Amino acid sequence: MKKKLPHAYSVRRFVLGAVSAAAMMTGSAALAQAQEPVQPVKPHKVTEPAKVELGKKLFFDPRLSRSGFISCNSCHNLSMGGADNIKTSIGDKWQKGPINSPTVLNSSLNLAQFWDGRAKDLREQAGGPIANPGEMAFSHDLAVDMLRSIPQYVAEFKSVFGNDKLTIGEVTAAIAAFEETLVTPHARFDQWLQGNTKAINAQELRGYQLFKNSGCVACHNGVNLGGSSFQKMGLIEPYKTDNPAEGRSAVTGNDAERFSFKVPTLRNVELTYPYFHDGAADTLSQAVDTMGRIQLGKNFSKTENADIVAFLKTLTGEQPKLVLPILPPSSDATKRPQPFD
Amino acid sequence: MKKKLPHAYSVRRFVLGAVSAAAMMTGSAALAQAQEPVQPVKPHKVTEPAKVELGKKLFFDPRLSRSGFISCNSCHNLSMGGADNIKTSIGDKWQKGPINSPTVLNSSLNLAQFWDGRAKDLREQAGGPIANPGEMAFSHDLAVDMLRSIPQYVAEFKSVFGNDKLTIGEVTAAIAAFEETLVTPHARFDQWLQGNTKAINAQELRGYQLFKNSGCVACHNGVNLGGSSFQKMGLIEPYKTDNPAEGRSAVTGNDAERFSFKVPTLRNVELTYPYFHDGAADTLSQAVDTMGRIQLGKNFSKTENADIVAFLKTLTGEQPKLVLPILPPSSDATKRPQPFD
Repeated sequence: MKKKLPHAYSVRRFVLGAVSAAAMMTGSAALAQAQEPVQPVKPHKVTEPAKVELGKKLFFDPRLSRSGFISCNSCHNLSMGGADNIKTSIGDKWQKGPINSPTVLNSSLNLAQFWDGRAKDLREQAGGPIANPGEMAFSHDLAVDMLRSIPQYVAEFKSVFGNDKLTIGEVTAAIAAFEETLVTPHARFDQWLQGNTKAINAQELRGYQLFKNSGCVACHNGVNLGGSSFQKMGLIEPYKTDNPAEGRSAVTGNDAERFSFKVPTLRNVELTYPYFHDGAADTLSQAVDTMGRIQLGKNFSKTENADIVAFLKTLTGEQPKLVLPILPPSSDATKRPQPFD
Repeated sequence: MKKKLPHAYSVRRFVLGAVSAAAMMTGSAALAQAQEPVQPVKPHKVTEPAKVELGKKLFFDPRLSRSGFISCNSCHNLSMGGADNIKTSIGDKWQKGPINSPTVLNSSLNLAQFWDGRAKDLREQAGGPIANPGEMAFSHDLAVDMLRSIPQYVAEFKSVFGNDKLTIGEVTAAIAAFEETLVTPHARFDQWLQGNTKAINAQELRGYQLFKNSGCVACHNGVNLGGSSFQKMGLIEPYKTDNPAEGRSAVTGNDAERFSFKVPTLRNVELTYPYFHDGAADTLSQAVDTMGRIQLGKNFSKTENADIVAFLKTLTGEQPKLVLPILPPSSDATKRPQPFD
């Protein structure tokens, strides 16, 4: 199999092998890490636990939707890699969503939020779906009214923010604080980056080398293996899709950025199928094949594809261990949702 | 206020007061408990933890629905008292459910499952919604195919059941094993039953006395304050509703049981609004008022109503503390849901 691989692969594998061995011998992983275009995810340190707990409640609370049925967790399901595993999400009244739901895991590491980056951060993002008529279909005012009608929420906001404001600003700040905790450290690949040469096997390592040498890493790099730039979908070959999303140009008005999307993270990619902004690729194998062709002009062999897929599966990190929140009950004054109106 | 109450109330309050005091003095709660028509919920002892863990995964897995969007937890939300707080639930393609979703909490204590008792136990119940075209809209065969396509599930079923069967029988057995853990002990009222006279306040105690003396307890008794019998909705006055549910007669074919429903548990009733099989009562106050009139021929005064409501809120128990399960990812062979077809 070795002879089929490009020269660069063999050389770099050798170098890498040497570096890893050195790391093992000296006990220092710093050298190995410094050589790599990918860095491990750091565990999150919670500094405001009460804010995070409040944000968790809000994240799981379907009363932030018109119907009382859809919560943040419906489409960013923390049992399922922080996504919904559906091509495009289901919104209020079963509306078909316009785009594949990106994972909330490690989303704090992205340069911006949404596929087109129209929200600069998690706070700005969190307000979006609540008021989007095709998603949670509520309004910020109605969401705040709901929360203000519930004494336990009122007390909790006051305790967290030290005032009685309880506006959408506090709501999204709390949700964002919770979302910032949703990082997935200790992936096997991260353990390997940190010097544990046994954390990934030979096939996975071959996959990583190919991932680097083929150019995947040009966009999927850094801590999040993505999330740090916008790139055109279909650089070499046009990408065919029925999905009408325009990408970055819809935000900037710059026609040159048409079909440019935020590069998705590859962390936990084993869990976040289907892939691409239109959810058109059901499997990692399909996604690798398509990306190779349309972004890199490469037709990966079956073995190469399998090796890359094997590597990608080493990016599954420790999933956040969350105790399901118990939501404060509505009061008699809380407006009841009318999902069928 | 005392003078407005029926004689029996004053007498029984006195007796009860004396019994409670005795319990305090002797340190024995047995006597007090024996006198009451309600018994405390016992904490559940898990004997098969692996089966419970598997059942928890299945309970939270939306891939048991046609759309990949609806799980058991969607309508029996364990963040919200094990119900959905909607009049009638939202099913596949946003279909309007026929009946209010009963809480899954303490449901193992009921004599049968569903409002009309058509399932004899939790195992039989669990298969219902999966295959109901108006709910999860899947089929048992498709659910089993899905699970069999996921190696981690296959291994887990094998480890739990000691064989490779993985039929709907194993699926519902695991879900039921999880649901049996969902009891809510240590409600303030249970603490009072067990001899802690300070666990409920004077108003709450008045409410309980009124609840007993007015006849509510005739149906809402036992450990679950309900769940032990079927009763006609509208004994004294007919109950007016647009909801077409026929109740028990739909199961037995006995016309005399028309509009007879399983008495719902009052445990955690503060969390499980709206009330009745049609979800027509938004608040506890409304529910108490309606029940008084149509079942007992009583018009509770505002104060009486408030006292009963105060008592009902002492029935909120310790909610199950659940670590959100991480679901095993679909394999390439897993059929992808097509929610919009």
